[in-house]
Amino acid sequence: MRDVDLNSDMGESFGAWRSGDDEAMLGIVSSANIACGFHGGDPEVMAESFKIARQKRVAVGAHPGYADLWGFGRRVIPHSAGEIERLVAYQIGAAQALSACAGHPITYVKAHGALGNQTQTDPDVALAVCRAVKAVDPKLGCLTIALGHQERIAQEMGLSTFSEIFADRAYTEEGHLVSRKLPGAVIHDEAEAATRAVRMVRDGAIETVSGKRIETPIHSICVHSDTPQSIRIAAAVRAALEEAGMSVRSFIR
Amino acid sequence: MRDVDLNSDMGESFGAWRSGDDEAMLGIVSSANIACGFHGGDPEVMAESFKIARQKRVAVGAHPGYADLWGFGRRVIPHSAGEIERLVAYQIGAAQALSACAGHPITYVKAHGALGNQTQTDPDVALAVCRAVKAVDPKLGCLTIALGHQERIAQEMGLSTFSEIFADRAYTEEGHLVSRKLPGAVIHDEAEAATRAVRMVRDGAIETVSGKRIETPIHSICVHSDTPQSIRIAAAVRAALEEAGMSVRSFIR
Amino acid sequence: MRDVDLNSDMGESFGAWRSGDDEAMLGIVSSANIACGFHGGDPEVMAESFKIARQKRVAVGAHPGYADLWGFGRRVIPHSAGEIERLVAYQIGAAQALSACAGHPITYVKAHGALGNQTQTDPDVALAVCRAVKAVDPKLGCLTIALGHQERIAQEMGLSTFSEIFADRAYTEEGHLVSRKLPGAVIHDEAEAATRAVRMVRDGAIETVSGKRIETPIHSICVHSDTPQSIRIAAAVRAALEEAGMSVRSFIR
Amino acid sequence: MRDVDLNSDMGESFGAWRSGDDEAMLGIVSSANIACGFHGGDPEVMAESFKIARQKRVAVGAHPGYADLWGFGRRVIPHSAGEIERLVAYQIGAAQALSACAGHPITYVKAHGALGNQTQTDPDVALAVCRAVKAVDPKLGCLTIALGHQERIAQEMGLSTFSEIFADRAYTEEGHLVSRKLPGAVIHDEAEAATRAVRMVRDGAIETVSGKRIETPIHSICVHSDTPQSIRIAAAVRAALEEAGMSVRSFIR
Repeated sequence: MRDVDLNSDMGESFGAWRSGDDEAMLGIVSSANIACGFHGGDPEVMAESFKIARQKRVAVGAHPGYADLWGFGRRVIPHSAGEIERLVAYQIGAAQALSACAGHPITYVKAHGALGNQTQTDPDVALAVCRAVKAVDPKLGCLTIALGHQERIAQEMGLSTFSEIFADRAYTEEGHLVSRKLPGAVIHDEAEAATRAVRMVRDGAIETVSGKRIETPIHSICVHSDTPQSIRIAAAVRAALEEAGMSVRSFIR
Repeated sequence: MRDVDLNSDMGESFGAWRSGDDEAMLGIVSSANIACGFHGGDPEVMAESFKIARQKRVAVGAHPGYADLWGFGRRVIPHSAGEIERLVAYQIGAAQALSACAGHPITYVKAHGALGNQTQTDPDVALAVCRAVKAVDPKLGCLTIALGHQERIAQEMGLSTFSEIFADRAYTEEGHLVSRKLPGAVIHDEAEAATRAVRMVRDGAIETVSGKRIETPIHSICVHSDTPQSIRIAAAVRAALEEAGMSVRSFIR
Repeated sequence: MRDVDLNSDMGESFGAWRSGDDEAMLGIVSSANIACGFHGGDPEVMAESFKIARQKRVAVGAHPGYADLWGFGRRVIPHSAGEIERLVAYQIGAAQALSACAGHPITYVKAHGALGNQTQTDPDVALAVCRAVKAVDPKLGCLTIALGHQERIAQEMGLSTFSEIFADRAYTEEGHLVSRKLPGAVIHDEAEAATRAVRMVRDGAIETVSGKRIETPIHSICVHSDTPQSIRIAAAVRAALEEAGMSVRSFIR
Repeated sequence: MRDVDLNSDMGESFGAWRSGDDEAMLGIVSSANIACGFHGGDPEVMAESFKIARQKRVAVGAHPGYADLWGFGRRVIPHSAGEIERLVAYQIGAAQALSACAGHPITYVKAHGALGNQTQTDPDVALAVCRAVKAVDPKLGCLTIALGHQERIAQEMGLSTFSEIFADRAYTEEGHLVSRKLPGAVIHDEAEAATRAVRMVRDGAIETVSGKRIETPIHSICVHSDTPQSIRIAAAVRAALEEAGMSVRSFIR
């Protein structure tokens, strides 16, 4: 029997604005990436997220992003590598403090949105994020995109590294995400997404658009939390994994 | 021979805007209260402040304030006690992370501006700040205003508590700061401020406007950093303390 | 046959965060108070709101609030009267520009949230808001809370003044809103809210908790837009008004 | 005798943070580009800037930039052309309102920082800014960088277009600014900057690094306001223009 993690972005509300159905999602996933107030989240939302995650025994990680509430962290804001290192460190620290207050400390870090995408494609950004993790707390794990630069760099730096795939996204021949602008980039059918996720985890390989398989370690499956179908897809993926005899558990225990 | 600390608010620049001459002030004080990005400061300014403070062997503390860049943390933004606890915890965590990155971890917490004033006069706010310190790291000291509510509450909660007086502010008969709106509230003459600070530390007593002395522990003298005369007053206070045979050293070693 | 306006707060989304079902609400009301980016809304949301309001032939007004995204403009942020005048002027100008771009210029101003409540109870705040309206464009109407200070001050300053009541809120003997903290402050039953609104408009009088009637001009009924039942209550009020032979039309034509 | 305008960026303070010596600069220039609160400035700073400019009889323009207080509008924040149009329109409206309140309405618009640079090099951005000006108030002038895309596009759209050169920047053979990263990009000697500015205005031609002259209309000279030498350079340029028999006057009267 194989264990696999299911992770999702959460705590993305801000002030009076609500985002996602975190309560429901925390009943499905095994790891919750908690926004740290720069692109979403605020101290209240963070504290509440850590509290509920603790009750539901879901592992929590810091989910730092660019300081871009208006753009929800989805825009590449120009920064030097040093600036990225420091804004990630800041957010990790804030998440450590609030998760400690909730009696449920964070155990890993995953970069959000545009910053997350850059950790896959830009080695300087990947290094900056890893340096922040190492400087703040080298025992924190790095949740990285499979086959991206951060996966390799985090390992080289001796950080505990865990790799994720996306249940509902198509992959190029190089194992990168097909741009959302292209047709077929997103898999909308929950059954298809679930079947495909099980297959990739079982085979230890990413499936590209041509059907090619690229073998690579897979520790976690990322499911989205911000669309109306999110909960349904997440539940379908979890059910399919369990039917296939796999156990959904956090990669860090 | 008596030791006493000299503290000042620093790291209050934001982005392209500069505030105060931190480099000069860090050559005078023994403790620097570093803004945490909510009312001033940003990850870059914080990192730079911790780095210079380390070079100059100046102790550093987190200086959390209300989320009010526009008002520089000087306005009372309505919050519940729980909200204050969490926004303070957030900022302490951020400061812990960036100071750790700089190899010069924070050792204490002091509330800023309107929040700081409330810790003296409002027991609920004082308790909220103390709860945040205790939850995030009970080994952190609390730098509090002498004779205020936080001094008492922090002690009752078993936190290491250090009390400050202001060199350049007049005190009421109750030992509180005379409102800046009243004449004589601020002492502008640096020699007078220095002489007075030495006397209060030496006597272990706050001097009120009528000349009454209220005995109370004094661990630190706060000097301002944001006026043109700041550096001159700080230097005068330090010189006067040393002439009086006192040693200017951080209260935490 | 009597005309009456139905107004609601709209354009309160921000970036990726959605608030309310503006499309549906714009099919019911005759006036839309559009947030101006300080407590909610952003240039994108504003432009979209003006565009849809134009299509649905709904009058639009600027809805300025405190610069408090985190608190959604519901907290009293300390300001001088002059500061309020200028932050309101700023927001009116922004709304004028974006509504002009959409070919559907704003015709009135209504203060939001905490600022709006203060215009009823604090004459200095009421005056500051009126001064901003007059300085920016004296042809803009003032939508004010019936029996509040702004109603009187706006009239004295010669501004076109329109007064609103709330369909779903109880009134004290003085004609002010019963605090939300007290039982019975909010009327949850849509039929009751609708019947009551019709009665108050028809009689030209506010009904207090004791059943007393205070005669006062009523030009508009405010319906909320941010609760799940908002659309239902708004539709019920409109239907009841029309059944009673009244026509729902903007107070400015 | 020839008239020429001298313009500078002003009103760039924010809250408690001061930027530049606006009072002194307003005694030298004939046009002040006033920040609109997105990259710098706030309603208080704007109102004060318009008031002083009025007293000193200096023309005022809106100086919109990206919503980037932290980066002072110097970073390219990714936006669609439509988004740029709307964020510029918003800021123009805010500036119109506050300048009207001060009895000294804006007469032109100049894009700030990264946005300003893009109006020179990116026709889509240039068009977006021009569309905002035209939609909000087609009588407003466009202050554009000489030889850039916005100069041409603004003219084609029938907007009153005025072109500026920089006194202290070197130009490439194409008439663009030499990147600040290259040696010689900035002229630090005030006498050289002044002589050169006079020569370019008198000849109606930009001087490139090789000494080539590109004839082009020049209505204004831009002097910086944010360095310690700013005031000195601005005063030197003005004195040199007047010695050469030119009159420093706003391009819009």
